Amino acid sequence: MFAVEVERKFLVHDPADLDETEADEIEQGYVAIGAEGQVRLRRKGERLVLTAKRGAGLSRQEAEVELDRDRFDELWPLTEGRRLHKRRHVVPHGDLEIEVDVYEGDLDGLVVAEIEFASEEQARGFDPPGWLGEEVTGDRRYLNETLATEGAPS
Amino acid sequence: MFAVEVERKFLVHDPADLDETEADEIEQGYVAIGAEGQVRLRRKGERLVLTAKRGAGLSRQEAEVELDRDRFDELWPLTEGRRLHKRRHVVPHGDLEIEVDVYEGDLDGLVVAEIEFASEEQARGFDPPGWLGEEVTGDRRYLNETLATEGAPS
Repeated sequence: MFAVEVERKFLVHDPADLDETEADEIEQGYVAIGAEGQVRLRRKGERLVLTAKRGAGLSRQEAEVELDRDRFDELWPLTEGRRLHKRRHVVPHGDLEIEVDVYEGDLDGLVVAEIEFASEEQARGFDPPGWLGEEVTGDRRYLNETLATEGAPS
Repeated sequence: MFAVEVERKFLVHDPADLDETEADEIEQGYVAIGAEGQVRLRRKGERLVLTAKRGAGLSRQEAEVELDRDRFDELWPLTEGRRLHKRRHVVPHGDLEIEVDVYEGDLDGLVVAEIEFASEEQARGFDPPGWLGEEVTGDRRYLNETLATEGAPS
């Protein structure tokens, strides 16, 4: 996969009935975090993936490859101190899906919703439902790499 | 592989008879370069490897995994603008091997020798042969990631 991502992100103070939605446990860590690029390892259920991102903001380049367990375990130690756990609930919303990440561990209490769009036009036209709170698209404090290294914003 | 590397690095102004030594063509690019970690893709002959490094200086952590062609090709586009080509000659020196990298393309004319040691003690005790020039161990300008992004030191 080699794609451009267009996303918007919102805080969730009062999540909808998440217990009834599909959810995956996600464990992820950062091998490298640079000004212009990052490499992340993620375990989502049984699926082990290395994702590379470059650029920032509303649009950025991304590529991902699946790894087998041996390769994943070889690289995972380098993410020490830059890891996070969350449960991802997927909430249908018209033609869209709203991914709601409920953080655990040190980030317990933080809930962030993210919507991926097919185009920047669609992203701009999105009318957020009432249960989405403050928009934090582009706010560095809510990037997963920031949360993994610096913890939750105070 | 998960190991600590101990290396010293020298400029080579007048390389020994490199044409008679074993040599590999190396093409490499950086997916991410961070203050504390980096991820590199390297093609050395037919071998395709992803290497993650963390830390810096005389000792640092490193892990590497081989990738198949599909995975390599998926990630390679993200290294655009952060690539380099070189030929690596391996020169035996007692129990050690001196790797001499002859850079090509934009870095043509630059020749750098690197020696990997089993311990920091052995590294400190190394007596460089006369054909090795100025030591540049720890000099950021001669890191491959710097050469790939900023070019040769002027």
